Amino acid sequence: MDPNRIVYGLHAVRALISRNPGRVARLWVLAGRDDRKLRELIALAERNRIEVGEASSTRLDQLTRGAVHQGALAEVRASLDLAEVDLASLVQSIEGKPLLLVLDGVQDPHNLGACLRNADAFGAHAIVIPRDRAAPVTPVVRKVAAGAAEHIPVVSVVNLARSLEQLKELGLWVVGADVQAEVTAEAAALDGPLAVVLGSEGDGMRRLTRDTCDLLVKLPLVGTVESLNVAVAAGVLLYEVGRQRRLTKWIPSPRSCPLKGEREE
Amino acid sequence: MDPNRIVYGLHAVRALISRNPGRVARLWVLAGRDDRKLRELIALAERNRIEVGEASSTRLDQLTRGAVHQGALAEVRASLDLAEVDLASLVQSIEGKPLLLVLDGVQDPHNLGACLRNADAFGAHAIVIPRDRAAPVTPVVRKVAAGAAEHIPVVSVVNLARSLEQLKELGLWVVGADVQAEVTAEAAALDGPLAVVLGSEGDGMRRLTRDTCDLLVKLPLVGTVESLNVAVAAGVLLYEVGRQRRLTKWIPSPRSCPLKGEREE
Repeated sequence: MDPNRIVYGLHAVRALISRNPGRVARLWVLAGRDDRKLRELIALAERNRIEVGEASSTRLDQLTRGAVHQGALAEVRASLDLAEVDLASLVQSIEGKPLLLVLDGVQDPHNLGACLRNADAFGAHAIVIPRDRAAPVTPVVRKVAAGAAEHIPVVSVVNLARSLEQLKELGLWVVGADVQAEVTAEAAALDGPLAVVLGSEGDGMRRLTRDTCDLLVKLPLVGTVESLNVAVAAGVLLYEVGRQRRLTKWIPSPRSCPLKGEREE
Repeated sequence: MDPNRIVYGLHAVRALISRNPGRVARLWVLAGRDDRKLRELIALAERNRIEVGEASSTRLDQLTRGAVHQGALAEVRASLDLAEVDLASLVQSIEGKPLLLVLDGVQDPHNLGACLRNADAFGAHAIVIPRDRAAPVTPVVRKVAAGAAEHIPVVSVVNLARSLEQLKELGLWVVGADVQAEVTAEAAALDGPLAVVLGSEGDGMRRLTRDTCDLLVKLPLVGTVESLNVAVAAGVLLYEVGRQRRLTKWIPSPRSCPLKGEREE
């Protein structure tokens, strides 16, 4: 069993089976345990035609690396882990305006999990991360993501700048979050097809990533702190995109980004 | 030394002394250590007339409970910890439109720290927490808050519903975040004097807290997850308040909350 493709804990496993039964390869429950909540979970799995197996306490502890699993563990199918070659077909398969969240070097699993949760909550279609500069989608990430990791595709790419150029060719605007930007998110037109890029917790985007963006935007910070937590910044930006989209109707033709002028073809 | 009133780590201590030197009672550095960064920190403290003491590695480890302190620890003055009796005078001393963040039972120190950071970043004047139902402001909270804990007052109250009633009497609208609300934040008028209330990660607001709110609002969630992380929800709501305030001019007279009708006096 791939240790990165498990979800554990009664609530997390129940939520996963209820919402995305097709994503669950198998449910594992603690051998010999007989309590009401576990029985209900087994019944839910069986109603969804998910195979149920029993595992020893030692095995469950080992798989979850000692975390609190409450005797329930789901094995997740792998199909949401995509690679660079899948990016174009993924974007082309999106109905309506694409919205991608790009994370350039988010290392903390709690932040990555919260970003997945935000992306799902605010209607992003996928997350793009550079393969060598991001936390992998581990069980901790899945737990923090509260079910989103089993729903939203994560595309690992080898060369992030190249992938951003590819997204531009596919008609997306690439908008980076930068505390030094001159334009605030609310002053920018974020209602088109969009890739929103955030950098790492400490250093922000890499220079090449920043240079590849069509536009840099900031959030208006009025206090003493210099920046927001990256998951909070991602949440606010995705919220702002959704808010602007609800105000406008989409005209599905190439249009200029009002703050950068026409993109050179 | 009160173990909850310390800030540690080179970056955190430097940021604190740079931005709020008056909040630092004393800087403690690792005895016998002589490196450039620590020398610069000592010079910064001395320029700000902050007393510098030396402490053993054992003592620093003990005070930080084994966290990575990098040989630097600041002792913070207590004056930002306020109690229920201070709430009215705090609100009355605010210039412009009050904005308070009320957290009804946020237990996780990372979430509380991130909420402090959000509150400072988006211009809230204080945080209100129920004394018996919230994480205290520990060093972990301070570290996650990235300097905000030394800047924004935290008011611990005994009876949260009573304090919310007091805020209403002071002219604030009490708006609670609830995933079951009928109104979205962007459809509500959030540009007046405001207390924004969020509940605990698992259960939301307590019933009495919810019943005390003038209005309940939700964020538009379009994916599969049922809720946002509480710090992300707080960040998005405070951002939305700021956004609405930047669009409107404030008329400093009692006005009706458009979605609830006139408050009964």
